[in-house]
Amino acid sequence: MKLSVLRQILGRILMIEALFMILPLIVGIIYREPSNNLLAFGVTIGLLLCIGLIMSRGQINQDFIGIKEGFAIVSLSWILLSFFGGLPFVFSGEIPSLVDAFFETSSGFTTTGASVLVDVEAMSQSMLFWRSFTHLIGGMGILVFALAVLPKTGQGSVHIMAAEVPGPTFGKLVPKLHVTARILYKIYLGMTVVLILLLILCGMGPFDAMIHAFGAAGTGGFSNKIASAGHFNSAAVDYVLGIAMIVFGVNFDLYYLISIGRWREALESEELRSFLKIIGVACVLIMLLLAPKYSSFSRLLRDVFFTVSSIISTTGYATVDFDLWPLFTHYILLILMFIGSCAGSTAGGLKVSRVLILFKSGLGEVKRVLSPHRVMVVTKDKRPVKRETIQSAHMYLTLYIAVFGFSLLLVTLDAPDFMTAFSAVAATLNNIGPGLAAVGPTKSFAFFSDFSKVVLSFTMIIGRLEILPMLILFSPSTWTKR
Amino acid sequence: MKLSVLRQILGRILMIEALFMILPLIVGIIYREPSNNLLAFGVTIGLLLCIGLIMSRGQINQDFIGIKEGFAIVSLSWILLSFFGGLPFVFSGEIPSLVDAFFETSSGFTTTGASVLVDVEAMSQSMLFWRSFTHLIGGMGILVFALAVLPKTGQGSVHIMAAEVPGPTFGKLVPKLHVTARILYKIYLGMTVVLILLLILCGMGPFDAMIHAFGAAGTGGFSNKIASAGHFNSAAVDYVLGIAMIVFGVNFDLYYLISIGRWREALESEELRSFLKIIGVACVLIMLLLAPKYSSFSRLLRDVFFTVSSIISTTGYATVDFDLWPLFTHYILLILMFIGSCAGSTAGGLKVSRVLILFKSGLGEVKRVLSPHRVMVVTKDKRPVKRETIQSAHMYLTLYIAVFGFSLLLVTLDAPDFMTAFSAVAATLNNIGPGLAAVGPTKSFAFFSDFSKVVLSFTMIIGRLEILPMLILFSPSTWTKR
Repeated sequence: MKLSVLRQILGRILMIEALFMILPLIVGIIYREPSNNLLAFGVTIGLLLCIGLIMSRGQINQDFIGIKEGFAIVSLSWILLSFFGGLPFVFSGEIPSLVDAFFETSSGFTTTGASVLVDVEAMSQSMLFWRSFTHLIGGMGILVFALAVLPKTGQGSVHIMAAEVPGPTFGKLVPKLHVTARILYKIYLGMTVVLILLLILCGMGPFDAMIHAFGAAGTGGFSNKIASAGHFNSAAVDYVLGIAMIVFGVNFDLYYLISIGRWREALESEELRSFLKIIGVACVLIMLLLAPKYSSFSRLLRDVFFTVSSIISTTGYATVDFDLWPLFTHYILLILMFIGSCAGSTAGGLKVSRVLILFKSGLGEVKRVLSPHRVMVVTKDKRPVKRETIQSAHMYLTLYIAVFGFSLLLVTLDAPDFMTAFSAVAATLNNIGPGLAAVGPTKSFAFFSDFSKVVLSFTMIIGRLEILPMLILFSPSTWTKR
Repeated sequence: MKLSVLRQILGRILMIEALFMILPLIVGIIYREPSNNLLAFGVTIGLLLCIGLIMSRGQINQDFIGIKEGFAIVSLSWILLSFFGGLPFVFSGEIPSLVDAFFETSSGFTTTGASVLVDVEAMSQSMLFWRSFTHLIGGMGILVFALAVLPKTGQGSVHIMAAEVPGPTFGKLVPKLHVTARILYKIYLGMTVVLILLLILCGMGPFDAMIHAFGAAGTGGFSNKIASAGHFNSAAVDYVLGIAMIVFGVNFDLYYLISIGRWREALESEELRSFLKIIGVACVLIMLLLAPKYSSFSRLLRDVFFTVSSIISTTGYATVDFDLWPLFTHYILLILMFIGSCAGSTAGGLKVSRVLILFKSGLGEVKRVLSPHRVMVVTKDKRPVKRETIQSAHMYLTLYIAVFGFSLLLVTLDAPDFMTAFSAVAATLNNIGPGLAAVGPTKSFAFFSDFSKVVLSFTMIIGRLEILPMLILFSPSTWTKR
């Protein structure tokens, strides 16, 4: 492990965070907030710049960034960003506890959207802006951003990007990595701007529109209203946000394909089609079960579509308290939490493409037992999937269950009931936000002990980075000399 | 699919069931039970013999038993045995509902021990005997028994036995299959007789001793007392049963090794050692958490050891209402439910050896990512595990999750809460018996709808046969002509 390059890159990342923090400072100035708030951001920015400058001394030697270093840089970045990102909340006194602030900021950067706030409307505009802005930054991965703005090339970046975007299909759109990163960021920011405009057209104020667009774009789910998206009580808002969450849950490679005119290829994507099918089936099943409780079909459709879209995209906005729905619908929502959205999107979960591979190879196993001498081929988009890809999907599932089980073990130490503990871990590991029971959509994570909050914060980061980087960070062999 | 050989073998299996049913009939005669009960067994025996005789017509051609036929015979046998085995309960009126009787008998044969009976002490001796006797029959697999008593050889038996005992290590003790089956049965019945004698020494009546020995030997868990094993309120009984359940959860190959003097090899088994370690760790963790609630250490040790042994061996006897314990202990019990005991034992669950392979290959994956060019070898008992074995362990986990998820989906339709639904599926798929919440150790499965009872009955059979046979039975390609 080359510690020098670790220190240098982490230093730069902290300086980038300082730059990002200038935006909420400006928001504070515009809204003429008390100097307390402005100072909170100012001090944090100063701190980040000082520490960042000291750490980043020296010329970065990209050749020093191997696989281990890539994983370590990514894991440590997310932990440090969450820690320092939470300081303005602590300094301003709006979230006095350091653990709470760490939880809230991890939840922001990992685009989870789980909150310890009981009265979000008591927060100031600058803090709300920063809280939601972390969703936008975290959505595409801050290190991908760093690669996009820093015109560096070399093998080192590959290891960093591979560690941060480890999904089963990390599309190589164009040969050069930082060019890919820039294209993705342009698409991402462009779609976010369009969403802000659409929400304003639906009657939202510009500030609310920004907050909710950030939350949908990063599939995070922080709102500045206690009633979440339900606050606006508007069919137009519900449908625009509902569709937007699904749009940001699609593999961004497809938007690139569309942008260069390869429409057909994009629309024929098996992952996209399965994603939409799952959404359709879930909506129909839940609507059938809820139908007796609704007098209006259009209202039923609107509530169910929004909830399904919010959960499968791992966003977590709520327009209705689905914790009051019957158990069967909860279970369907839990399944959607685990499936999540497409690989290469801003969303969490196991990812549709991985679930497809698992499902198909599981069926293949049944066939293989019946005809041991036949060669079974799992296909995706009509092309055979490599054996290594299948194997790593199964390994991922095993590790995922292990991490899930271990987090659940720690959380059950102070959870009030099994559904709360189970759905809290599911909602954080899959980066959704609200769970069910005591962590349902109208509740918060405030009641957990500091211990559980730290565990769940790490669970969010583990989920966002798809497990391996964090496991590798904590494995002793990473830190021993080769 | 050769239907003729299917029909013939199933016919013989039904006739064997008729023979087994003579025993409870004798119990009924000894206890001078009303003619109603004797008639119930008599009619069922007659029915089984008639149907069996008609079905088994013709000479069996072992060459017709391929892989498909093997799986179909095993799956259908277990379904038919459970159906016909439930008829005496219905005919006597002691369990009037056909669905309830099917549930109770599936639960017996699969050595699950989940019950729909609210007042088990109201049942007659002959019915209680039959109910528990199904545990003894099911423990080693009735088809293994069939192979042991029918002096047939040929390739066909291999496919049947492989389908019924599909664990990751189906030990080939001796070259000839029916010899292996006989050795295993001798060990099994011998240990059961010893257990009956020990329980009588502890002060149990001979009838109670038989019932509880059958339940422990098959790791089933049916008791003839409402308070389960807790009824006897004896430390000696608790420890004898507690140790017996663990003993029957060990791979029977090890007992064979011991019987031929290869003690050391048996005691060095990695699976055995891991099994005992898991039991130890679980006991310590639960005792730490329960310590404040107990004034006597010996009582704490006794209750926790019995519960852990009962759950990990997937037996399900209870001496204490662990549903009243704190959430953390429930979660540990849930983990034990999923792990289960050793392969090649009478117990259910994922099996320790499979969990070991999954755990080790998961760790290997982390190492592989760090050093992509190094070859990772997973070992068991110091020998490398074949790639196919690792792959099929992962496939099994995937299929297991799929079956678990699907059963849970159906059960949530009428379960009162998530813990009930989740633990009901966990307790049936892993062949344990009682779960938590509404299906806790002092409750019964009676309140479920007929639909859920049928689903859970099939879940028990799927779990007992380790998934593949039942999936293959229900897959359309099994029934189409080659």
